[in-house]
Amino acid sequence: MLPFANITIIGVGLLGGSLGLAVKARDSAVRVVGVGRRRESLAAALARGAIDEASLDAAEAVAAAELVVLATPVGAFQGHLRTVAAALKPGAVVTDVGSTKSQVVRCAQRLLARRRSDGIAFVGSHPMAGSDRRGPESAREDLFTGATCILTPTAACRGDAVEAVDAFWQALAMRTVRMTPAAHDRAVARISHLPHALATLLMTVPGDDDLRVAASGFRDMTRLAGSDPEMWRDIFATNRKEILAALRRFQGRLDGLVQLLEAGDDVGIERLLAKSRARRHEKFPGGKQ
Amino acid sequence: MLPFANITIIGVGLLGGSLGLAVKARDSAVRVVGVGRRRESLAAALARGAIDEASLDAAEAVAAAELVVLATPVGAFQGHLRTVAAALKPGAVVTDVGSTKSQVVRCAQRLLARRRSDGIAFVGSHPMAGSDRRGPESAREDLFTGATCILTPTAACRGDAVEAVDAFWQALAMRTVRMTPAAHDRAVARISHLPHALATLLMTVPGDDDLRVAASGFRDMTRLAGSDPEMWRDIFATNRKEILAALRRFQGRLDGLVQLLEAGDDVGIERLLAKSRARRHEKFPGGKQ
Repeated sequence: MLPFANITIIGVGLLGGSLGLAVKARDSAVRVVGVGRRRESLAAALARGAIDEASLDAAEAVAAAELVVLATPVGAFQGHLRTVAAALKPGAVVTDVGSTKSQVVRCAQRLLARRRSDGIAFVGSHPMAGSDRRGPESAREDLFTGATCILTPTAACRGDAVEAVDAFWQALAMRTVRMTPAAHDRAVARISHLPHALATLLMTVPGDDDLRVAASGFRDMTRLAGSDPEMWRDIFATNRKEILAALRRFQGRLDGLVQLLEAGDDVGIERLLAKSRARRHEKFPGGKQ
Repeated sequence: MLPFANITIIGVGLLGGSLGLAVKARDSAVRVVGVGRRRESLAAALARGAIDEASLDAAEAVAAAELVVLATPVGAFQGHLRTVAAALKPGAVVTDVGSTKSQVVRCAQRLLARRRSDGIAFVGSHPMAGSDRRGPESAREDLFTGATCILTPTAACRGDAVEAVDAFWQALAMRTVRMTPAAHDRAVARISHLPHALATLLMTVPGDDDLRVAASGFRDMTRLAGSDPEMWRDIFATNRKEILAALRRFQGRLDGLVQLLEAGDDVGIERLLAKSRARRHEKFPGGKQ
């Protein structure tokens, strides 16, 4: 059912651990090797049954892999690719679970260019699933189930490698979508990185007294602020241009609302509220979800 | 158990309808009269069992009430208070479920001043519960259960009236908190009205193509945008000063993040993310909620 029988996951935190659990749940015969920096994380991933084998040595751990998945914070990808490039088995496919794609794809294709003649291919992936928890202890077999995975193949990607990676995510019950790395980065800046920034900033606005009466609306709106700072530092660093564009777009909207309020333009405010509500109901029908 | 045996609710939408259901569930002997503008809403509230009796005439409907609750959009309160002021029974207590308090309390105390000698008192309330749905069809007996209700008594409020209103909300399983109208308006501007504004604006940023890949984070962050525009127009209109102050505070935070990104200050960004995360975990322990 799964298009790969030997999988090495580099990084066994929430995403890597959940990926291992999902793979083993679909087909327990697939061999999953986990690579980590800390023995405790690897032990936890082994104990959870997310991996069959643990390794502190990425080069050694990828030698037999048909699929290698980078599942650390994006900022560490370059180091991992340098480490494993020469050790990859001919024909191996490399993918990742990173939240930004242009820099990642460019870097991976450059670092793996010399192995192209061995049939080694990199196909960027972004499974859009997560949680405000981290570590293999929080891994869940169904983290990816029903969510969207964006694939960002380029002209340099072998067609069969793209199909295999697509089939892999679909086998884990994900809906796959293909976009260019640039279109991906602009879209996620607007629908994921901007909301993350807003949640982070919102959490810093109210004082302790104000928070005594915070209700579910505020809790929902700041949930993303609870996420892993290291992972998100790398996302901001590797998608800076598009995140800045999205923040400036939002600043424009905010300035517009401030002007309406300063002018006491109740009609204009109601029009804005109604327009936004109509768009919300059109795009996410079925009320609260 | 409930401190009032005769209750008139003006407005039988989501909040008024839910209030009626909650009252009847606690004590079916309490008589609940509902006032509405539209026969269909009143019929729906009657059919749901949220009210015992329906009326299109507020003055007539309050004549026997020990407690009158204003549950329409805030902008309609003034008209209702003018209509009912002379008709209220001596000793009656008036409260509301409005999301802003300074203007509401000032207006109510002015319009009911002539009835003060009859023992009529206004006590402002803000039960912090809601939904992105509206109308009596969406009313829920447990909408208020476990939520916070802010009471904003002033020196002009009779002590026993304040205690009775407090006991009323507590009997509906709400946690009550007391604040001045001004402190209430500043706190809710930051923890409720600002998040609402952000959700409304965020919904307008991504294009249709971007929204194809929107995931649960974006859905959560825009849920508030699905709320009733008329109700929220009134909230923005009656808490303009504090909402503007909260929006400007947020603009300052946003400018700070833009500067960090422009400078490529990854360390500063990680520090901001970590600080916000720590505050989130301190204030809302227990992860996702």
